[in-house]
Amino acid sequence: MSSPRKPQVLKGFRDYLPEHMVLRQQVLNIIRSVFEKHGFEPLDTPALEYMEILTGKAGENEKLMYHFRDQGDREIGLRYDLTVPLARVVAMHQNDLVMPFKRYHVAPVWRAEKPQRGRFREFWQCDADIVGSNAPLADAEAVNVLTDALQQIGLGRAVVHINHRRLLEALATIAGVPADQAPTIYRSIDKLDKIGRDGVLADLQRNGVSDDSANEILDIVTMTGTNDELLDFAAGKLASIPQGAQAVQELRDLVDNIERLGVPKNMYMIDLALARGIDYYTGPVYEAQVEEPKVGSVAGGGRYDGLVGTFLGRDVPATGISLGIERILEVIQEFDLLPARKSVADAMMVYVEETLADAAALARELRDEGIRVDQSIMTNKGIGSQLKYADRRGIPFAVILGADELARGEVSIKNLATGEQREVPRAVVTQELDMLLKDQLTAVEGE
Amino acid sequence: MSSPRKPQVLKGFRDYLPEHMVLRQQVLNIIRSVFEKHGFEPLDTPALEYMEILTGKAGENEKLMYHFRDQGDREIGLRYDLTVPLARVVAMHQNDLVMPFKRYHVAPVWRAEKPQRGRFREFWQCDADIVGSNAPLADAEAVNVLTDALQQIGLGRAVVHINHRRLLEALATIAGVPADQAPTIYRSIDKLDKIGRDGVLADLQRNGVSDDSANEILDIVTMTGTNDELLDFAAGKLASIPQGAQAVQELRDLVDNIERLGVPKNMYMIDLALARGIDYYTGPVYEAQVEEPKVGSVAGGGRYDGLVGTFLGRDVPATGISLGIERILEVIQEFDLLPARKSVADAMMVYVEETLADAAALARELRDEGIRVDQSIMTNKGIGSQLKYADRRGIPFAVILGADELARGEVSIKNLATGEQREVPRAVVTQELDMLLKDQLTAVEGE
Repeated sequence: MSSPRKPQVLKGFRDYLPEHMVLRQQVLNIIRSVFEKHGFEPLDTPALEYMEILTGKAGENEKLMYHFRDQGDREIGLRYDLTVPLARVVAMHQNDLVMPFKRYHVAPVWRAEKPQRGRFREFWQCDADIVGSNAPLADAEAVNVLTDALQQIGLGRAVVHINHRRLLEALATIAGVPADQAPTIYRSIDKLDKIGRDGVLADLQRNGVSDDSANEILDIVTMTGTNDELLDFAAGKLASIPQGAQAVQELRDLVDNIERLGVPKNMYMIDLALARGIDYYTGPVYEAQVEEPKVGSVAGGGRYDGLVGTFLGRDVPATGISLGIERILEVIQEFDLLPARKSVADAMMVYVEETLADAAALARELRDEGIRVDQSIMTNKGIGSQLKYADRRGIPFAVILGADELARGEVSIKNLATGEQREVPRAVVTQELDMLLKDQLTAVEGE
Repeated sequence: MSSPRKPQVLKGFRDYLPEHMVLRQQVLNIIRSVFEKHGFEPLDTPALEYMEILTGKAGENEKLMYHFRDQGDREIGLRYDLTVPLARVVAMHQNDLVMPFKRYHVAPVWRAEKPQRGRFREFWQCDADIVGSNAPLADAEAVNVLTDALQQIGLGRAVVHINHRRLLEALATIAGVPADQAPTIYRSIDKLDKIGRDGVLADLQRNGVSDDSANEILDIVTMTGTNDELLDFAAGKLASIPQGAQAVQELRDLVDNIERLGVPKNMYMIDLALARGIDYYTGPVYEAQVEEPKVGSVAGGGRYDGLVGTFLGRDVPATGISLGIERILEVIQEFDLLPARKSVADAMMVYVEETLADAAALARELRDEGIRVDQSIMTNKGIGSQLKYADRRGIPFAVILGADELARGEVSIKNLATGEQREVPRAVVTQELDMLLKDQLTAVEGE
């Protein structure tokens, strides 16, 4: 044998072994299911795209991307989000898509960033977007599906913070900075949580904002109150700045629609200090934050009416949300928010050489009823070894069909966690196991 | 607005629009579910790997891969199958994995091959493997889960052809060619279906095989009969060639175990002409073929006891199967093997401005019962427009809550395919819709 290759993964990448995949798939399936329950249709796009598609204006974000020349000398890259591919799809297939187009996309993206704790170079995004509607109800539905998904995965304590891109622009106008430097203002505001009012004040002044203007901006972004109070206050402060007044009115409409859609009142709030950086947003922006436990942002989104236009030459309104599954999984695991199983199998079929065919027939019956049954392949091992194997796998039950049981027309069901074991007639084994599995699920959920 | 980017996808790549994704996800979900029902655990690995991991011996397969140097000057590539990453995972995590390790992996792979009809540069594989067992029962379970998956996706007429790598080697021994040229013999045999006995004979002779040897090989690979007859015949012919005799004995054990696992007899057969090329196979090899309609191979697999050893330095037995979803989807669509839906949504909630909040509350209730309800966001459009939109989306039912209905405490349910509409009390709308959806599913399946 030639000398072995060193088995290793690239830095910033991970294998998901079964013990993590089971929970991961459970969460992804819940999110997919919520998206579908809201009528978002599935879409998938290639991992590889022309770099021209991915980068937009020359070189933007290019450093963040995995890109290279392929055999045909095309400059191509791995997608770094799911929004740009959506915009491309809409531009390419505009005549095949029924508008408004509601789509979801659950898939990995790649970023050549420096890996950090909890930040990887390959990670999954769960996006739901509505293209082709500028109705505030579309934005409200984005918040609705987001809060629904958060609730279903056990994050019902998350709060969606809501602001508006034009309101941020109005603040930049107050600051007196030219439009292309506005992002420096957003970045200052974004630090409010970390460095406090005085810190932001100093930061703004460093960026050439006058004392009066900086204080006026800080009065707005540090204001507290109900959604209505905040919007009334902002309306007063921004009345003379057209994009500010427009933003406040759109936020009023949005909050009204969110309420009518029945989103729990404790799951959304106007936050005039929310400064979501992504360039392409043109309207409301959101970020779902979990304060207790303090884990920060787990999802975000907003309206981006200009992005499809970069492909199509004419604007198509669009709005949507994206859940970052990696952070969410960390939270779920750290705080045991979902009942976790180590194995997907419900039961291990345990048997002896002479009962193999009967055990296989029984496994087949159980599978037909939806029970996940691993049939041990340890043919030469005794029943004890098979049970130990099932237990190490984390499989909750064993169905034992020894020669004695077979002769008596019975089957033993063993709970591998408690060691409890009982014999049941073969004819009722499906019902019995079904009941035990349901009991177990309830017990775990009630913990 | 700057001049738009041309929206296009790379040659050999595809977008999956909802009308294709709905079926695609349905099939992938069935396959995942069958894998889990057999106790295979989910695994995921990075799309990108060190090229050294992917290529094995110098440069092998390299032309087929997307590869490049990353920012850290590492030579990396996109995975071209799911088997090599599995072998790496086993070598890296050998102490964390419970052996035998049963895992499945459903994910895309990338190959920089010339695109052809039905062959793409990005495609999905559905793999199920058992690592750490050399029992014939493990191979039999691979065939068992494969045939189960094929049945569940409507391909119960597929037949798994079974041969053995050592038997092919024995044929090469008969041919008198050195071991490293054996693949030219397999390639000749592989053409039997296309060019017939005389064609293969000429092909073998062109490769320097004597007339007698070529005829002896052809006698074996063109033999017909039951599995037992074929194996008896091969046993007689190959008795003097050790690896041939061993292969026949292992195939006898395999067929015996497949039978005991209850695999339908019409879904597997010994096929001494099956020449599956992949280098790393060391034992039984399989290929699922669909003859009627004539679509060829839809899945394959085999035993590969040496692959993990290329990372670990010691052999770990492994066996498994892989379903090629792209060909399977083509077949399912062409022959309508599964009931197809255009939309994931079961119903569209249709309403007027004044009933928005009530409609949203009803949608919420229906979703809680597992019904997928899209709430129309066409706020300014009348009920007629909303119904037309739902119909264009291919959504089967509309739930209509107009002002009149609301006042009467009723809801209209409309079948958008037939136009049939009836009013039901709001309290029973969930049950009614549930029943209609079940009826519809039965009707489609019974078509």
